[in-house]
Amino acid sequence: MPGVSPSTVSSLLKTNRDQVVSYLKNLRDTIIGEFEKLEVNGRFARTIWPYQNGDGGGEMSVLRGQTFEKAAVNWSGVYGSRLPGASSAAANKGSNQDTPFFATGVSLITHMRNPKAPTVHFNLRYIERLDSPASKERTESWFGGGFDLTPMGFAYPEDTEHFHAVAKKALDPFGVDVYPTYRKNAAEYYFIKHRNRERGVGGIFFDNVNSGDIGRDLALWRSVGDHFLDSILPIYRRRIHEAHDEDDRRIQLERRAHYAEFNLVYDRGTRFGFESGGNPEAILCSMPPLASW
Amino acid sequence: MPGVSPSTVSSLLKTNRDQVVSYLKNLRDTIIGEFEKLEVNGRFARTIWPYQNGDGGGEMSVLRGQTFEKAAVNWSGVYGSRLPGASSAAANKGSNQDTPFFATGVSLITHMRNPKAPTVHFNLRYIERLDSPASKERTESWFGGGFDLTPMGFAYPEDTEHFHAVAKKALDPFGVDVYPTYRKNAAEYYFIKHRNRERGVGGIFFDNVNSGDIGRDLALWRSVGDHFLDSILPIYRRRIHEAHDEDDRRIQLERRAHYAEFNLVYDRGTRFGFESGGNPEAILCSMPPLASW
Repeated sequence: MPGVSPSTVSSLLKTNRDQVVSYLKNLRDTIIGEFEKLEVNGRFARTIWPYQNGDGGGEMSVLRGQTFEKAAVNWSGVYGSRLPGASSAAANKGSNQDTPFFATGVSLITHMRNPKAPTVHFNLRYIERLDSPASKERTESWFGGGFDLTPMGFAYPEDTEHFHAVAKKALDPFGVDVYPTYRKNAAEYYFIKHRNRERGVGGIFFDNVNSGDIGRDLALWRSVGDHFLDSILPIYRRRIHEAHDEDDRRIQLERRAHYAEFNLVYDRGTRFGFESGGNPEAILCSMPPLASW
Repeated sequence: MPGVSPSTVSSLLKTNRDQVVSYLKNLRDTIIGEFEKLEVNGRFARTIWPYQNGDGGGEMSVLRGQTFEKAAVNWSGVYGSRLPGASSAAANKGSNQDTPFFATGVSLITHMRNPKAPTVHFNLRYIERLDSPASKERTESWFGGGFDLTPMGFAYPEDTEHFHAVAKKALDPFGVDVYPTYRKNAAEYYFIKHRNRERGVGGIFFDNVNSGDIGRDLALWRSVGDHFLDSILPIYRRRIHEAHDEDDRRIQLERRAHYAEFNLVYDRGTRFGFESGGNPEAILCSMPPLASW
């Protein structure tokens, strides 16, 4: 994807949040197109859903295929009168929760048929505080996102290395400390406390980014989006044809159960969704197509 | 099961909590025996686990068979120096959380192979506050428990009626208001908030019962235990041979996913377990053998 200079996007953003929404929707379409090239039996089906507690809504795209046992890409853009819930990501910002907000994002999870192919999770989100529900003028804004990799019992060191190399490449232009910090964030965030171990092999995670230079923050955020497909497609091209047997499948389904545990017990996006009265089908579209305990 | 007069058990309890533990273990063995009579291919396997944060531990009995795709019966009896977690059932009692405690209980969940056969959940629990970890003398105690029924997409009115009739029979000797109250508790507790509906068709639920008459409370608690098998066995005898097809199975696996959501997002027992540093395998042994999102 071609870049836009930070100063240009900055001025655009100041006048029009449609630029952020357009970027997210285009990225969503690009990802869907690339995933469909790998899929031998199926296409993404799109469902539009309205936001119950305010204006806006979302588009949930789900593929149930052969290569992708399930892949879900959810775009949303919602206006609300009050930032939801104490345990949510958004609530970390803003002491006054009675603040009108606009939130938009893309969230993606894959569950591959082949046990040797890992699950990937990707998210970009953008939250604005508004001066009032009526005018919808932005008064402050934050960026968040990242991507992380979860092998379902079969971790290949070269896959992990590639994935992190691309993440580093995405972030290094914004300072040498950025990638290590965001990698550490991911290791801490994607941790299954009751099992006392990380969910997968990590990745990058950032939240509530507002450096004061919105052009820089937006460029960083877009760089993460622009690099996502490079992080995962080479891995999928290698792994979707690996030999596997019933024992591998059993291990995969058990690991998927741990993934489901993380999403339901710890994930802030899920909690944010439940607390903000979101559509449960959209919030839980990331859950595994089949899991075993 | 033959009854013991309230005055007898009361005096026994005052001197020896082993009576409660014995009742629970005998009940566990009786249930396992009756379930194994229905099972055509498998036996319960027992795993003993130590409590990491104190004395005691538990015994997890799991059957993975043909009739019972998975049935788990967990007995535990643990001594700790501090009642765990703010969101837990136990924490509701006792303003001073730095209180040594003894907790024992039996918890059971079934996941049937036949989609027409419902999941049943049963639990009895007993918590004592102790004067000190060393002496382990009881200073106060509470009873809790209940049973509830969750059809996996196929609810038969006659099953629901039977189940509640047995629950009523178990509780009516203790006052006409008891069954309606405990039924209401269950309807409120077994509620999947993010889906805005009850988990199943209800049952009975009680927690922190301490009426001042420990003989009466213990007799009520035992009556729930003594009636459990009557509530579910006639239903299983009817349903485990019902005709079913792949669509029924699909519906069953989706409903099991909702069950998994309840356990991980809302269940206080699960939270209590995580917060008290319990064995994740024991805490999550109730999770479905297979679930689909």
